[in-house]
Amino acid sequence: MRQTIKDKVFTREVLSITGFEAAGLPVGLKKSGKPDLALIHSTQDCALAAVFTTNRVKAAPVLFDMERLNRDAHHIRAVISNSGHANACTGQVGLQNARRTAEMTAQILGCQPEQVLVLSTGVIGEQIPIDVLGAGIPEMKAALKTDGWLDAAEAIMTTDTVPKAYSKSHDGYTITGIAKGSGMIAPNMATMLSVVVTDAAISPSLLQQALQMANSKSFNSISVDGDTSTNDTVLLLANGASGVQITEGEMFNTFVRELTEVCAHLARMIVVDGEGATKFITIDVTGAVEAASAQQIARTIANSPLVKTAFYGSDANWGRIMMAAGRAGVEFDQTRLGLWFGAGGSAENGLQVVANGTPTQYAEEQAMAIFQEPELALRLDLGMGTASATVWTCDLSHEYVTINADYRT
Amino acid sequence: MRQTIKDKVFTREVLSITGFEAAGLPVGLKKSGKPDLALIHSTQDCALAAVFTTNRVKAAPVLFDMERLNRDAHHIRAVISNSGHANACTGQVGLQNARRTAEMTAQILGCQPEQVLVLSTGVIGEQIPIDVLGAGIPEMKAALKTDGWLDAAEAIMTTDTVPKAYSKSHDGYTITGIAKGSGMIAPNMATMLSVVVTDAAISPSLLQQALQMANSKSFNSISVDGDTSTNDTVLLLANGASGVQITEGEMFNTFVRELTEVCAHLARMIVVDGEGATKFITIDVTGAVEAASAQQIARTIANSPLVKTAFYGSDANWGRIMMAAGRAGVEFDQTRLGLWFGAGGSAENGLQVVANGTPTQYAEEQAMAIFQEPELALRLDLGMGTASATVWTCDLSHEYVTINADYRT
Repeated sequence: MRQTIKDKVFTREVLSITGFEAAGLPVGLKKSGKPDLALIHSTQDCALAAVFTTNRVKAAPVLFDMERLNRDAHHIRAVISNSGHANACTGQVGLQNARRTAEMTAQILGCQPEQVLVLSTGVIGEQIPIDVLGAGIPEMKAALKTDGWLDAAEAIMTTDTVPKAYSKSHDGYTITGIAKGSGMIAPNMATMLSVVVTDAAISPSLLQQALQMANSKSFNSISVDGDTSTNDTVLLLANGASGVQITEGEMFNTFVRELTEVCAHLARMIVVDGEGATKFITIDVTGAVEAASAQQIARTIANSPLVKTAFYGSDANWGRIMMAAGRAGVEFDQTRLGLWFGAGGSAENGLQVVANGTPTQYAEEQAMAIFQEPELALRLDLGMGTASATVWTCDLSHEYVTINADYRT
Repeated sequence: MRQTIKDKVFTREVLSITGFEAAGLPVGLKKSGKPDLALIHSTQDCALAAVFTTNRVKAAPVLFDMERLNRDAHHIRAVISNSGHANACTGQVGLQNARRTAEMTAQILGCQPEQVLVLSTGVIGEQIPIDVLGAGIPEMKAALKTDGWLDAAEAIMTTDTVPKAYSKSHDGYTITGIAKGSGMIAPNMATMLSVVVTDAAISPSLLQQALQMANSKSFNSISVDGDTSTNDTVLLLANGASGVQITEGEMFNTFVRELTEVCAHLARMIVVDGEGATKFITIDVTGAVEAASAQQIARTIANSPLVKTAFYGSDANWGRIMMAAGRAGVEFDQTRLGLWFGAGGSAENGLQVVANGTPTQYAEEQAMAIFQEPELALRLDLGMGTASATVWTCDLSHEYVTINADYRT
């Protein structure tokens, strides 16, 4: 067996946060008997920010949380999240089950149903066995603890092989996040579930602004297979327990930077744990007129099955990268293209394989050596402007096909 | 081994056409020693129509033929096509090699270089060994014969496993086409090579109109992997040798219908021979406001790795079809969606699995039985309007990954 990126150590420095507690338990929703219910609770009211899937087919919990966000983003107390059932394409019964889940959770926590958000992930089209879920909720309360983040992260996993959590502390406040996702991972939007909490004090409108900025450079910059799910949600809760108030200006910019680091770390963890992934690839597109068109090209390269299978085969097939760039729908001049490969997370000072749209006199062995690495990077320069974008992705392996051909069986 | 669509008999009723001859030979361009050079020749001048790849990275022969089409679409005599080298990303030398190929071909055929078109397919970025190709051209002339269509079809193959050719005769004229393609197959445009010839007499402008109409319902309605190549070209030559003159009105409509049948048959052959394909799937999207949005949804379903792997796993995972439809970028109301599965080429009178956006009480065994078939269809109805579109695709298998992880080795 060759070494895969799965062998790389996942950094999971999870810090407890004043006023928050978390839990994850098996309550019988998954046939496997693995943890399937997660609860995150704040002892005081939280400001809420959130981003949701852009898919036109939205799961019941997404519709439910969107309504909550619109009604009152000041008094959130808890997030309850089940895995095993996506509660998508479940009609009125599905919406009723999402509502019922919030009510039962509020009851044991002693808060109002309006203060509880709901997340679901798993198979589409099956109703959640609401009695099983309801019977599990009281146990969840007993399991809540300030260092329960990895338990919660584990309970929201589906085809994930590793729980994903990360924290940062800065200037008296802390940000801790958990995430799940390994298939149906594409930009626009996160295409996964994530709950990020902080003890900073911040208004819902500033919090929403911060989340959107962080999201664009983290969860929206990754892709496993180009598929966007019906359930994708990132929730960001701020309970203010640290006493540090985030205001506009320098302090806000720092908060966004820290939040982006947490989200980007979680996003990269999702790619590394991508279904069947054996390689982690950083795609930089530079020299574009606009960042949006750079990102469009980077995404198209990241989602091309021919590029992804070449990565899997450790084949430095740069022609397919040129092909994918060319079909991204962005205008450019093919005679200006430059392409570099590098081992690790950057292609700066890497091997230039294309100049002015045609291959350089590079040594194939050098390119092959880079492509043998579990982590590698490419940079495509359009030679037009100064805008750029980065997308993180993984390869497309036999294992991806195996996992997804048999998912429901 | 389960039965695959490859076991289905390819219909290759190839008819000779007055004034046309074809050849295919191995001249040493492919390491494997398989046929790698094809020549199609008309003893009289042909009207020309053509469609080319929309990829921004265009191969030298594409640029060369585009210029030919613009300059003079009345006097074409020949098409020379090599496999093994795509002649893409090859700069000025590549353009010179395309020009040189046309010159050498004209010389042995006794026509002008301006009357010869050039096609290439194979690996990107390597220069064609022009001396090897040049040495082979005289042999090609000797090999020309009126029934050489399958030889030519075989000589343009790359990862294709079966040569693709088809003919139709109607009202005194005949249409014969050959095609290649099994990866980098996506709509917009043909994403493959095809040469179609007829002995009907028709003006270049009407011919171009006919090709565009036929193309939209054939080569532009298929997808193997969503990747569009740098070389895709469909050429249509009409030499008028039958004496039947196609004029506007009823006669033109009939010609378009016949041409569409030939192109659609070739297009379906490409999907059936898709890299690693084990299933042939027809995707109908109905009830749309516009045909373009119906096609956008059908394409997104066809290209979704999660849908394609479910097909491969014979898993009637309709939730993924809903997911893919939802991320197509088309507005619709998820509570109006209906979904049907059917064995064979149509889901009419098939099994309805979704009504009003939620699953019906269908029997899972029935759905599974349909998904075991090597040929199956699905229909997604949006419940909004009367427009519709059809896309043909195949599944995503372990074999696809194997073929593309090792292509250059």
